[in-house]
Amino acid sequence: METIDPELRQQLISLFGADNCLFEIEDLVAYSYDSARDEHRPAAVVFAQNAPQIAALMQLANRKRFAVVPRGAGSGLSGGSVPLAGGVVLVTTAMRRILEVSTDDLYAVVEPGVITADLINTVARHKLLYPPDPSSMKTSTLAGNIAENAGGLRGLKYGVTKDYVMALEVVTPTGEIIKTGAKTVKSVSGYDLTKLFVGSEGTLGVITQATLRLIPAPAFRRSLIAVFDDIALAGRTVADVIKSGVIPATMEIMDHITLQAVENFKHIGLPQDADAVLLLETDGIEAAAVQEAATIERICRGNRTIDVKIAASESERDQVWEARRSALAALARIKPTVILEDATVPRSKIPDMIAAVQDIAQRHRLVIGTFGHAGDGNLHPTIITDERNTAEMQRVEAAVAEIFDAALRLGGTLSGEHGIGLAKKMFLHKEFGLEGVETMRRIKKALDPNNVLNPGKLFD
Amino acid sequence: METIDPELRQQLISLFGADNCLFEIEDLVAYSYDSARDEHRPAAVVFAQNAPQIAALMQLANRKRFAVVPRGAGSGLSGGSVPLAGGVVLVTTAMRRILEVSTDDLYAVVEPGVITADLINTVARHKLLYPPDPSSMKTSTLAGNIAENAGGLRGLKYGVTKDYVMALEVVTPTGEIIKTGAKTVKSVSGYDLTKLFVGSEGTLGVITQATLRLIPAPAFRRSLIAVFDDIALAGRTVADVIKSGVIPATMEIMDHITLQAVENFKHIGLPQDADAVLLLETDGIEAAAVQEAATIERICRGNRTIDVKIAASESERDQVWEARRSALAALARIKPTVILEDATVPRSKIPDMIAAVQDIAQRHRLVIGTFGHAGDGNLHPTIITDERNTAEMQRVEAAVAEIFDAALRLGGTLSGEHGIGLAKKMFLHKEFGLEGVETMRRIKKALDPNNVLNPGKLFD
Repeated sequence: METIDPELRQQLISLFGADNCLFEIEDLVAYSYDSARDEHRPAAVVFAQNAPQIAALMQLANRKRFAVVPRGAGSGLSGGSVPLAGGVVLVTTAMRRILEVSTDDLYAVVEPGVITADLINTVARHKLLYPPDPSSMKTSTLAGNIAENAGGLRGLKYGVTKDYVMALEVVTPTGEIIKTGAKTVKSVSGYDLTKLFVGSEGTLGVITQATLRLIPAPAFRRSLIAVFDDIALAGRTVADVIKSGVIPATMEIMDHITLQAVENFKHIGLPQDADAVLLLETDGIEAAAVQEAATIERICRGNRTIDVKIAASESERDQVWEARRSALAALARIKPTVILEDATVPRSKIPDMIAAVQDIAQRHRLVIGTFGHAGDGNLHPTIITDERNTAEMQRVEAAVAEIFDAALRLGGTLSGEHGIGLAKKMFLHKEFGLEGVETMRRIKKALDPNNVLNPGKLFD
Repeated sequence: METIDPELRQQLISLFGADNCLFEIEDLVAYSYDSARDEHRPAAVVFAQNAPQIAALMQLANRKRFAVVPRGAGSGLSGGSVPLAGGVVLVTTAMRRILEVSTDDLYAVVEPGVITADLINTVARHKLLYPPDPSSMKTSTLAGNIAENAGGLRGLKYGVTKDYVMALEVVTPTGEIIKTGAKTVKSVSGYDLTKLFVGSEGTLGVITQATLRLIPAPAFRRSLIAVFDDIALAGRTVADVIKSGVIPATMEIMDHITLQAVENFKHIGLPQDADAVLLLETDGIEAAAVQEAATIERICRGNRTIDVKIAASESERDQVWEARRSALAALARIKPTVILEDATVPRSKIPDMIAAVQDIAQRHRLVIGTFGHAGDGNLHPTIITDERNTAEMQRVEAAVAEIFDAALRLGGTLSGEHGIGLAKKMFLHKEFGLEGVETMRRIKKALDPNNVLNPGKLFD
């Protein structure tokens, strides 16, 4: 469906309005890839204004059998919004109202296209927190976060997007508008469709409204940076902190390669000769956050940290976290192509996973910078390469497969927070077996019998 | 299938062993109801030892088309384990090993029949907490808790069973053994089948193993009891506490009727003339728990509490919570039949819901005691009646329907923690519409095409 048939073109225009449809090739190219970079050109791009429009589109898609691919900001890292089979890209960024913030019942009701950071900033004015904070939060949309079950830096203590979705309005693949979940903190009424749609990568329904749980904003926070001359000691520190009974809000790691890249990019005085740093934050009531930070400091010293420092001011704190958030961008400056993985292991296996990645890098003669959410066991081994170098790209492909195998061997999972999408679908059976994948496929077929909604993702 | 055919009888014996099969009528009667009391007699009861046995049973059930109804301790409150269509009751209480407690990665791996309190006590020895604590926890099984997504007293701060299930091993209705989820705190790999099975009330699969998340046990806790001469002031206090930014571990309410019943039963000196009491607990680092308790005390005084008292000792604390846990038993002593509901509303609507229940009680001339998890908006209006009084039972039925309508009108849900089962299935479409129920039905049909696993629950 590279060129659109004139009848469908007219139907889309009458459904969405001419101003909200794109058919020109230069526009279509812009919507042919996301942050995972696979390119497949759609036949049309439409910008939805409301759920009934989307329901009508899905009914049309079932009648005429074309693919519909929902898309937010396109910041996904697994190809979830790439229009693999052509068809219509359905963009939800125009539906971007925050409909309600309940300070009594601690939830917000949002349209799908609200930018993550806009919600975080809006609720902060009420002293509330929406915890999920993917690194892309300044551009990513909430429905995109929900579809991919986005994580972020606060996952260790506060969980991920899934833990904050209370209720959804969804357009099903066959074009019904349904409501799932409840605006109550407890609900066990029927199957948990809410959680089924979260992380389903736009293959089971189009999210048109979400009720998101909020929590009281922590009154106080304390950030620490701990420097190690051996990354294995940093890994052991992660395990020791958890064992001590302290669950920090955040516990991040950056290895030597990432540290150097970030410092060259941001010049904030990170130690360039260190093998690794841990970045940690405690929060809550002041007395608790201070006591927990002191416990962490003691554990770092017990594990022969070179230096452990508490951020002295809010601006010093912001600098630390800005550095961490820039890790991917910093690594991307080194070579033209970055391949970012998010294999995840039980947190006690972090040292083993780091060793496995180092071994894979060495054997395949690749540069792999590793950073990520150490407290969650969610590492981002990032291969720095050049896609024009075909010989190296073959080694990259082998290395990626070995990274997944290592994660699964250590009791982990293919993806902590980026999703399966296109990038990892050939590996899914390794995690769940053919029977597990078949169970997922049956659910997809039950809800989308004509396979029109985001076909070809997760599994074939 | 009231009497069993001899061939099936022999097949069950060869699959499970004669010692693990019951066919005598006096045994079958014992497995014909659960704590929700509907009675339907099965043709056989079997006690499973392992997952492959269960897989073989499901394959047999599909070939011969008989119903299989999974059952733990039978403590469910919505009829989830009642063998509505006869067939085979599959009891998992013999699979009761705690297979692993990981103090590094904070999870436990359990068989389905482990008693909830046994896990709680086992992990407590490692200074860890498994938070879900349904009132039935001394008898209920973990797989039963998972199938019904059980709640408990700690739901407000710590969430419910769903929030602690990381991974499952499940036998599908068609007899495959699959694994879902991961032993990592983050995972977005394929559809979230784990959360789909949680709360599916034994209709989508038989849980044969579960990996449950643990948290560090709070180092300190402080319990309070606050007495009010107007239940509306207690309701307002609940909302004010949350608004202040304090999320207590527990915030429970008991009304006048419940208070009297509990005091007559337990004699611990509860104020009998009060209109309501709130029972609260804060926990965590000592400084934080003490500060939060002081905030709560101040809010209670601002809302004209008659008396607010902090439990002075561990034994005084235990007495308070023992009193709360005995509420249902205490009410059950008054008349032969209790009908326990668990309609749930956004917590700011607690005063409205209490008023609605009082109005319903008055109009239908019924005695309804109300207690429950006020912080969650999860009330348990409990109708005290006598099922032999048919005229009164008709009024009870009308009152129950009105309670559900009131909860839904206030933006709530049919069930906070007991499930839909048999008891509420005729109301499900009121919450989710016919399209929502149809979506659930499609999933059921996709996974259980012959409708052999716990048929007739949730929807027809």
